[in-house]
Amino acid sequence: MIENEMKETDSGVCVQGFRAGGLKDKKNGIAVILSDKEVDCALMITANRVKAAPLLVSAERAAGKVRGIVANSGNANAYTGEEGIKDARQMCELVGGELGLKAEELIVASTGVIGRRMDMNAIERGVKEAVKTLDNSGEASLKAAEAIMTTDTEPKMVSVSVTLNTGEEVEIGGICKGAGMVAPELNHATMLCFLTTNAHIPKEKIKQVLKRAVYQSFNMTVIDGDTSTNDMVVLLANGLAGNNDIDEHFTEALNYVTRELAMRIARDGEGATKSIEVVVKNAKSEMDARRAARAVVGSNLVKTAIFGEDPNWGRIISALGYSGAEFDPEKVSLFIGEVCLVRDGKVLAYSDTEELKAAKKALASKEIKISADLNAGKYSATAYGCDMSLDYVRINAEYST
Amino acid sequence: MIENEMKETDSGVCVQGFRAGGLKDKKNGIAVILSDKEVDCALMITANRVKAAPLLVSAERAAGKVRGIVANSGNANAYTGEEGIKDARQMCELVGGELGLKAEELIVASTGVIGRRMDMNAIERGVKEAVKTLDNSGEASLKAAEAIMTTDTEPKMVSVSVTLNTGEEVEIGGICKGAGMVAPELNHATMLCFLTTNAHIPKEKIKQVLKRAVYQSFNMTVIDGDTSTNDMVVLLANGLAGNNDIDEHFTEALNYVTRELAMRIARDGEGATKSIEVVVKNAKSEMDARRAARAVVGSNLVKTAIFGEDPNWGRIISALGYSGAEFDPEKVSLFIGEVCLVRDGKVLAYSDTEELKAAKKALASKEIKISADLNAGKYSATAYGCDMSLDYVRINAEYST
Repeated sequence: MIENEMKETDSGVCVQGFRAGGLKDKKNGIAVILSDKEVDCALMITANRVKAAPLLVSAERAAGKVRGIVANSGNANAYTGEEGIKDARQMCELVGGELGLKAEELIVASTGVIGRRMDMNAIERGVKEAVKTLDNSGEASLKAAEAIMTTDTEPKMVSVSVTLNTGEEVEIGGICKGAGMVAPELNHATMLCFLTTNAHIPKEKIKQVLKRAVYQSFNMTVIDGDTSTNDMVVLLANGLAGNNDIDEHFTEALNYVTRELAMRIARDGEGATKSIEVVVKNAKSEMDARRAARAVVGSNLVKTAIFGEDPNWGRIISALGYSGAEFDPEKVSLFIGEVCLVRDGKVLAYSDTEELKAAKKALASKEIKISADLNAGKYSATAYGCDMSLDYVRINAEYST
Repeated sequence: MIENEMKETDSGVCVQGFRAGGLKDKKNGIAVILSDKEVDCALMITANRVKAAPLLVSAERAAGKVRGIVANSGNANAYTGEEGIKDARQMCELVGGELGLKAEELIVASTGVIGRRMDMNAIERGVKEAVKTLDNSGEASLKAAEAIMTTDTEPKMVSVSVTLNTGEEVEIGGICKGAGMVAPELNHATMLCFLTTNAHIPKEKIKQVLKRAVYQSFNMTVIDGDTSTNDMVVLLANGLAGNNDIDEHFTEALNYVTRELAMRIARDGEGATKSIEVVVKNAKSEMDARRAARAVVGSNLVKTAIFGEDPNWGRIISALGYSGAEFDPEKVSLFIGEVCLVRDGKVLAYSDTEELKAAKKALASKEIKISADLNAGKYSATAYGCDMSLDYVRINAEYST
């Protein structure tokens, strides 16, 4: 975060030139994001071989100019074959009809239960109502964020403004959803997240800045190890800020927005009682740092121990060990919060030591930080997740029925 | 299973020429397996980079001839540094002292909490008592199986006899433990399992037959996705059966024993209320079949849905999709039990169909079978696991404290 240039705003995705709206009716919702003019678009979709219909439809459109996004919650429109593709196209036609746009000018996304046909009558009713709520306000953006929630317990929205080196002030906003079936594949986005900016981003850079932002945020977030069929990140840039190019202030602001959104997803993981941040330092390669951090944050045994506030740190060492990262176990240092449990391979936290008691105390917090120094190189990575509670099982034992 | 030649026996690891014994005192246990003569040994250990002290000590010894195995439960003796190595060696010295053997003639294994020093006074007392129980009976083998239990709810023991083509009848026996921290790495063993046989296995074949057996059994068993620091499979062969070589009847019998033991581990997974068997057919490669089957059986979302008897089959399709296996989602067939939910990519089990109701009924069983035909090649694999219940979280939220 660049303290001087960047500040948080209340606009959400309703940055200059964008409107949003949405509504939620029990489990089903419709969100719409609309740009006043044609915008450049970058799209990243799940690495899952089974890709939901809206992803396939949107992938065709992301190369060109678009005008907006329509998304529904409650039904993933995944594994729905040709009919699903038709339904996704029809969702765009319905929105286009209301707003005087071509269907091809819209990105479409879905989230919900897999393997069910869409109820297009309900979608039609929802679209008609949702477009009525379109407005250029933070509240409207919040409505859109609420409309895409599934097992999420709160809407997720972040926005900032930042001044470029060339003097233009640009805005970046984002909303996202995600609480379960969260485990990104490298180089692919895996969350439903919609980002807008009034910056102009040169064509050759738009995909690249999005990729880098996703790489350090959503792709480092693991809730349950299940990579979804539906996840999608979209960045829309309308250029109204008047800048010719972007710079490091823009990319850092975009990284900040995506990382904040990812952390909100981690905090709101299904059944979560605590958020977990795992920092791996001094790994041999960036890949090693990433895989080690992800292994720890994704370990069911680490997650259940943290739920139980049990400083069973051996499970962390074990997860580092099976992560695939290269390191010498006898050179590792390990911390829970500020408490050092292992220093350079020497265990400080044997049973009944002060360190173990201090670690147990640190686990009483709602925000758990685990740090591991692999002492094998110079690369670092941070992963985001949450504990695994009884409610995780309850929620997922009865999701579809 | 070769019906004619192979039959189950009651001997456990106490096949001809072997004795066993053990005792359990609350969370701590000691098991001993002893051969009357020097035996050939094959050893496989965890792929986890953090390898427990007993694995490091045993790995030095597995190349030569050995006389037996000593194992303790309650403390994993993992991440215990040089002191852990000394403790593992001392465990062998204690057993050797009681039985008149060199410490180097013993394989040593441990299971329990990671990162705690061994209580060697307790181990010494346990060893003295355990060796008194040594006996060549099925009951003695069962005592050894009980002594290595941690969160296991029942001892796991399987043994068979089989007649080779050359006429000799050989016996194979095994005991194992495992209920949590179960997620094997390919080409590596990941369970605590001790196998004995009175067959002679030529030196160049002993590691190979063990590897193949482990590959289709323990390496296809996933309980929670956490690969342990301590898992070990040992095969001891004393040659008393008088055979010169082994044949397909032996390898199939060994595969049967290991697969049966693996299935018992799956059934006894921490908190499990149901066992799950996932068969993937017609994959493009053996690796694809294996990774697809493992992805489904290891998916938290599939496991929680099965706990809830919720036929949310989209989660199975999603897990196949992120497994890394190559296939065309529109050509897949999917079954729960005998119920076909998807045939050649066509969904039969939309909401409120008879198929969905039948699938829900099938999920009321204690033994769930999921089959997927990827229609992409000719390779098959089967993976073993269990559902994820509230008790899984309860058990692991309070394991070490």
